[in-house]
Amino acid sequence: MYVIAVYDVNEKRVGKMLKLCRRYLNWIQNSVFEGEITPVKLQELVVEAQKIMKKDEDSFILFKSRDARWLDKEVIGLERMSTDNFL
Amino acid sequence: MYVIAVYDVNEKRVGKMLKLCRRYLNWIQNSVFEGEITPVKLQELVVEAQKIMKKDEDSFILFKSRDARWLDKEVIGLERMSTDNFL
Repeated sequence: MYVIAVYDVNEKRVGKMLKLCRRYLNWIQNSVFEGEITPVKLQELVVEAQKIMKKDEDSFILFKSRDARWLDKEVIGLERMSTDNFL
Repeated sequence: MYVIAVYDVNEKRVGKMLKLCRRYLNWIQNSVFEGEITPVKLQELVVEAQKIMKKDEDSFILFKSRDARWLDKEVIGLERMSTDNFL
């Protein structure tokens, strides 16, 4: 399945969330990630995220699509993801 | 069509982008918006965004789906959008 993940967590936990999401998805912008992922791996990501997050302070949203072809992406301005490999 | 929009712009332009996106979509988190929008309105949003943005510094990404049913949303932790109506 294809997933877009966005998080909004307290500054203290941003580094951990970034590192975690990078293990499963491709970073595309700020706190936004996307990528193909199996349901099992996605579940793993959610469980790991919940360990990092504070439920009453942090937010993590997943948009799931069975097929990437159902989503059309348009980037206006800077395409930040190109630097992902270096980080 | 159904759209998820995320921006990553310089601090100086965040307020303007927020205000603009709110006119067209529903704010759900940080710099993330979603909603049903017509292609004409979306084009209008893009044109307005480009007026605000600096192409070499700012980024605005749109994920478009012909139908919201093709996207399944899961919110982990805080559901921030509930405050949207008050802002």
